Amino acid sequence: MIRYYNHNGDFKLESGDVATRLTIAYHTYGTLNADASNVVWVCHAFTASSDVADWWKGAVEEGSLLDPTKYFIVCANCLGSCYGTEIYDASVEIPFLTMRDLGQVHSLLADHLGLKKIHKLIGGSTGGMQAMEWAYAEPWRFDHLYLLATVPYTSAWVQASSEAQRMAISGAKEPQKGLEAARAISMLQFRGEDPYNLTQDDSTTDKLKDFKVCSYQRYQGEKFERRFKVSNYLSLLGSLDNHNIGRGRGGVAKALSDINVPTTVVSISSDIIFPPRDVRVLADNIPNAQYFEIDSVWGHDGFLLEMKQLTAIIHNK
Amino acid sequence: MIRYYNHNGDFKLESGDVATRLTIAYHTYGTLNADASNVVWVCHAFTASSDVADWWKGAVEEGSLLDPTKYFIVCANCLGSCYGTEIYDASVEIPFLTMRDLGQVHSLLADHLGLKKIHKLIGGSTGGMQAMEWAYAEPWRFDHLYLLATVPYTSAWVQASSEAQRMAISGAKEPQKGLEAARAISMLQFRGEDPYNLTQDDSTTDKLKDFKVCSYQRYQGEKFERRFKVSNYLSLLGSLDNHNIGRGRGGVAKALSDINVPTTVVSISSDIIFPPRDVRVLADNIPNAQYFEIDSVWGHDGFLLEMKQLTAIIHNK
Repeated sequence: MIRYYNHNGDFKLESGDVATRLTIAYHTYGTLNADASNVVWVCHAFTASSDVADWWKGAVEEGSLLDPTKYFIVCANCLGSCYGTEIYDASVEIPFLTMRDLGQVHSLLADHLGLKKIHKLIGGSTGGMQAMEWAYAEPWRFDHLYLLATVPYTSAWVQASSEAQRMAISGAKEPQKGLEAARAISMLQFRGEDPYNLTQDDSTTDKLKDFKVCSYQRYQGEKFERRFKVSNYLSLLGSLDNHNIGRGRGGVAKALSDINVPTTVVSISSDIIFPPRDVRVLADNIPNAQYFEIDSVWGHDGFLLEMKQLTAIIHNK
Repeated sequence: MIRYYNHNGDFKLESGDVATRLTIAYHTYGTLNADASNVVWVCHAFTASSDVADWWKGAVEEGSLLDPTKYFIVCANCLGSCYGTEIYDASVEIPFLTMRDLGQVHSLLADHLGLKKIHKLIGGSTGGMQAMEWAYAEPWRFDHLYLLATVPYTSAWVQASSEAQRMAISGAKEPQKGLEAARAISMLQFRGEDPYNLTQDDSTTDKLKDFKVCSYQRYQGEKFERRFKVSNYLSLLGSLDNHNIGRGRGGVAKALSDINVPTTVVSISSDIIFPPRDVRVLADNIPNAQYFEIDSVWGHDGFLLEMKQLTAIIHNK
């Protein structure tokens, strides 16, 4: 069940803007134990929602990664999204956000819920960016940090995709409909080469046009356009682009060396948006970190799909 | 100097359409020798022109790859392009083309120029696709074939990018302006990860927005929109998507095994649109082929930039 917390106080953004009010949408699963030592906090990726059981298939089940019979699991809809978490700032239509702002929202909700200690903080993709920002800001709060298929800063190549998406949206007859092309563009990197070639290959047919990947791209675009709002998407794209754990903190290596939380870092072998060589930089610089690479053909989505390998890694830590 | 050949006869396309007239624009450099044994034919890539000396910097020079003091060099603007080669078919605004149609145009021009034998046929990228189609159709014409940074068929991942580009164009307020986003999208693959990260990195700055890669993407989009025509671009995209040397010929391996021309295949280590593992399939299946991989950080563009390594390979063959 979705719940809401209305934070009635100023919320200062990294940009200097101040929001006057904030609503945070969240889900919980399982029960908090007596000494509040069983909290697992999940930061969701990009355009997902607070309903982990919905988007992370098989994760919220007895014996699985997020076992609700053992853990009290919390997931908040990230700031910038259109699934319930909302910022109120009359001065701008599209709030300018950073991953640090997104991280701060989780902290506010944890305080509201009275959760001083969090046993496991888990974030994949842009969820991992929020998690590392939160862990940097409040290392005392966490027993263990899990960073999955995520990177210390967003590369120029990924920023280039975001800009192509903004160009498609701003040039569109209707910006909202521009989300269709934007989604098709973003999938080139986050789904990636191998998954497309494995599932959408037409090279053994005699087709000259109407390849199955064409309808796949359009279908994914239309599906996304129906479920997301263009102004929110632009906010999220901006926060992805400016993700940089090292900004104003003496650089990436220095900032990571200050994350004083035992950390497990996991990459996916076929991930091209956040490739293993970039993910590995996290483990190379966080002092108490271990690194694992999951062998998977599913690209970036592997962190959602390789449940067995991921559960084995996280349960052993 | 650009020249034109007007072919006044039917030109049958693979789709079954018949064009009633065809103009072929081309450049030549150097002088044909007495026994016509010094012909080097270059098939240009995607949106380039017949002016090789303009787009292949340093190639058309004494001592270089295309030495005009030794060779008679010919380059025709490919069918579908907007640089002089034109098809006349009143029935359609955007002709539906395949790489086989593009290959056939070179054959018509060679016949017109009286060039029965071609010493070297060189094609990079989609130029290589045309070259392999031409060599398949008329193997007797060539002493040697050079396939650079090209593949036997277009992958689903590359088709997915084309579809995202078509979505950006068809959704644009003005289709012609949609070329800007299309170019920005296409560069994600053909420029590729490493070149973006090497030249457009902002991760050591404290910027929150306006990353240099953003203006780079917009600049490249605008520059392209000024020089290319959207209807031609859509034709070329279609021919890229349906490139498949094996179509109707018993599959890729069988078709390649029928290319009875000594062949040199070259890939670029950091090329992600036509990665070495895909390029290599050409050399693995063409009976008399040698394979080289050029070590380069410049992605797909490496075949245009790594002149020294490429010249060494081609001069030795």
